[in-house]
Order: sequence, then structure tokens, then C-alpha cells
Amino acid sequence: MQASIAIDPKPEVQYLLRIGDTCLILAQRISEWSGHAPILEEDIALSNTALDLIGQARAVLMHAGQLEGRGHDEDQLAFLRDEKDYRNLTLAELPRGDFAFTVVRNTFCATLLKLLWERLHDSADAELAAIAGKAVKEARYHQQHAADWMVRLGDSTDESRRRVERALAEAWLYVPEMFESDAVDAAAKTSGLGPSWSELEAPWRAEIQSILQEATLAEPKAAAFRSTGKRGLHSEHMGYILAEMQHLQRSFPGGVW
Amino acid sequence: MQASIAIDPKPEVQYLLRIGDTCLILAQRISEWSGHAPILEEDIALSNTALDLIGQARAVLMHAGQLEGRGHDEDQLAFLRDEKDYRNLTLAELPRGDFAFTVVRNTFCATLLKLLWERLHDSADAELAAIAGKAVKEARYHQQHAADWMVRLGDSTDESRRRVERALAEAWLYVPEMFESDAVDAAAKTSGLGPSWSELEAPWRAEIQSILQEATLAEPKAAAFRSTGKRGLHSEHMGYILAEMQHLQRSFPGGVW
Repeated sequence: MQASIAIDPKPEVQYLLRIGDTCLILAQRISEWSGHAPILEEDIALSNTALDLIGQARAVLMHAGQLEGRGHDEDQLAFLRDEKDYRNLTLAELPRGDFAFTVVRNTFCATLLKLLWERLHDSADAELAAIAGKAVKEARYHQQHAADWMVRLGDSTDESRRRVERALAEAWLYVPEMFESDAVDAAAKTSGLGPSWSELEAPWRAEIQSILQEATLAEPKAAAFRSTGKRGLHSEHMGYILAEMQHLQRSFPGGVW
Repeated sequence: MQASIAIDPKPEVQYLLRIGDTCLILAQRISEWSGHAPILEEDIALSNTALDLIGQARAVLMHAGQLEGRGHDEDQLAFLRDEKDYRNLTLAELPRGDFAFTVVRNTFCATLLKLLWERLHDSADAELAAIAGKAVKEARYHQQHAADWMVRLGDSTDESRRRVERALAEAWLYVPEMFESDAVDAAAKTSGLGPSWSELEAPWRAEIQSILQEATLAEPKAAAFRSTGKRGLHSEHMGYILAEMQHLQRSFPGGVW
């Protein structure tokens, strides 16, 4: 078994890991639909979304490795960290759930990532700005596709409405984490690397409200609960997803089996 | 549970199912790598291959439904048939195996499909010819990518060579099925729908021989065994793959859960 790598706590590295890991882990969950979506067209759409997200994760992790300066490549960062060193939003790591949950989660995450990439396009870090320029187009499409489904499900049968309401209530618990900001955000703001995620809250809520309205769905109530994946404290589901992801790399270091 | 649909035995429908099902089932197997390939770049390449194959399957099954004339759409054909009505090559349905097996299987299948699409581009069926025009470019890339890996594995470490030799010996058992021809092939040849698959044997063997040579690998010996997936008689692995694929569609007819 290959040992874990230690991660530099530098704020700019942490800032990038939050983005790259959210894309990486969300891609894992979405790709669990491959061959399981009962409509070929949607199987293709979800696979495409997962593929875009893996591409984004790869680019961001590669750049994080450069900023870290310890010679870690994107594969080592993706596969050889301990759970506490992953910095994804908790929402991304929750189990696949039913299709309604996938639609709601994708709507929430794509809206957030779209707003983030739009701002990162002006990053003082030219490499990150270039990544964002490509990613924002993909995120816009993901948001549109997921929001279209949200409207279809909200405004369709009783069963679809019941499922989407349940999914909405569950996913809503993990929204506040998106907009919490800390020293990592402050440093990124100061250096011009990127915005504090707290700045994304107002536009995110406005866009989601408009989608919910079109879907004739009510905004759930806020809860006191706060998830903490961005700080490395994950849900009980994270260990399983990492075990699956890391198995091959850890068993055959550098190999492809 | 949704009941199975009955399939028209018309030869032109059967001919298309052999192609569409081979793409569909191979895509399922390849997509089992999503999130499990220990190199992000290869995860992306395999996901892209699976996605191309699902797109090809979807187009061919849609057209098969039109030729059948019973109002079956591509989703019903993909998800609501009994095992005996799937017409894929047995090679496509074998378990994922290790990376070496994936490389060998993809090399074999992509080479076959490339040769087939090249000929289908001249099909008397304009719709099939159009599908082939797009698919042949994808298959060429799949073949090149898989063959590059075959050469790397054959010419690398003792372990990689041992694994690729084992994979080669196993996959080789399923090659003769590719080139068996029957009344379905004869009808397709006569009507101008497409070539008899037996015509693909000589060019397939020539291309594979050249790849093996570059990889410094020997061609395995032929065996008496004949697999029969193209005629609907599948290996013991087919039931499991269908159970996974069909679960949602059969449980929630027409739904997306």
C-alpha cells in the first residue's frame, strides 16, 4: 500500500483544493449514474457533466501541485491524500440518491461553480484565469441542464414533486457551508487569486430563487446545522468514496491496474 | 416491474442490434472504470470512449426501432429486452477485468468497429450511413488510444507484459465469434445494408498483427471454443450486467428514478 502524501497548508493551495476537490468528488458521484440512468440521453448528459468536472478537477489539482512546490502531480493529489486533506463541499460527497437528488445537487453546485468561475476568470493567477475561461462555459451548461430538470420534476406528477421536495430539503442543509469564509478566502481576496466564497451568496440565492419559482417549489427553511467538508471535516460517506477511488492507486503505486 | 418487449426477428433489425448492443454493453463495461482509473487522464479517456459508444448505441437502436416498426424507442430497446434478445459480441460483456484486459478488449473491439463503420458509410440505408460517418472517426481514435497502451504495456515491465499476455490469451477466445456469418449477414449484404462480418476478418487480423508486432507480443493459438452472444446465447456474466442496467427502468416504467 502506498502511503499518503502530506499537504502544504498554504492558503492558496487550500483555496484551489476546495475548488478542485468539489469538482472531483461531485464527478465521482455523478458518474455513479453511468449505465444506470434509465434514459440513454440522460445517461449521456450526466456522463458528459462528470467528464467536464473531472477535467476541471485535473486542471485545478495540477495547478495546486505547482503552487505547492513539492512536486506532487494531479494524480497524487487526487488519489493519495488522507480524508482530512480533501477540501470539497460536503454536498458533493453525499450518496448518489435518487434522480431528484442528483438534479437538485447538480443545480446547486453548478450555480455555485458558475458564479465562481465567472469571477476566477479575472484572477491575478493567469493559469487559474485560463482554466476558469473554459470551465465557466461548461458550468453554465450544467446549470441550465439541471435547472431544466428541476422545473420538469417540480411541475410534473405528485410523485416527482414529492421526490424533488424531499431532495431540496436535504440538500438545503448543506448550502450554508458554501458561503462560509475564513482565512483562506481572505488571503485569496487580498492576493487577487479569487473571491471570498461569501461574495457568491447573494447571486447564488437570487438565481436559485428564480429556478425554484419557475419550478413552483418553495425555498426550504434554514437550519442550524453546518457542514464542514471545506475544512476537511467530512460526512461519514467520504471514507467510502475515497476507499473506492484510491484502491488501485494505493495498491499498485504508479501502476495502472 | 415492467414486462419485457418482444423483438422482431427481421434480419435488418437483428443486424443493427448486433452493432448497437455491442456498443451499448461495451460502454457499460468501460464506464465501470469511471472514478477507478488511477490516472485522471486515463479516467477521462475511458469515460470519453464509453460516452462515444453510448452515443453510437443510442443512434443505432433508435434506427433499429424505426426499422422494426413496432413503436419501440431506443430506451425500450436498451432496457426492456430479455437477455436472449441482446445481440452483442460476447467479448463486450465479459467482466471489466484489470487494465490490461480493458486495453486488449478495447483494441479488439475498436478495430472491428472501425472496419465496420468504414464499410457502413456506404450503406444503402442513408440513416445508417450517416451514423457511420460520425462513428468511424470516434472508433479510429479509440483504436489508436487502445493500441498505444497495448504497445506500452507489452514493452514495459515484466508485470505489465505478464498481464497483457494473459489478457490477450483470454480475449483471443472470443475473436472467432466476430467473423461468423449467418442469414442475418447474408440479408444485409444482399440488401446493401452492410457487409457480412466475415469480410472484416482479413483486415482485422492484419491490423491486430501489426499492433502485436509493435508491442513485441505473440499472437495466441486458436482454440476450438466458439462464443455465441451475437445469436443471443450469452455468457454467465450477461445476466448481472442487465440486472444492473435494467433495474431502474423496470422498477419505474417511463420514470427517471
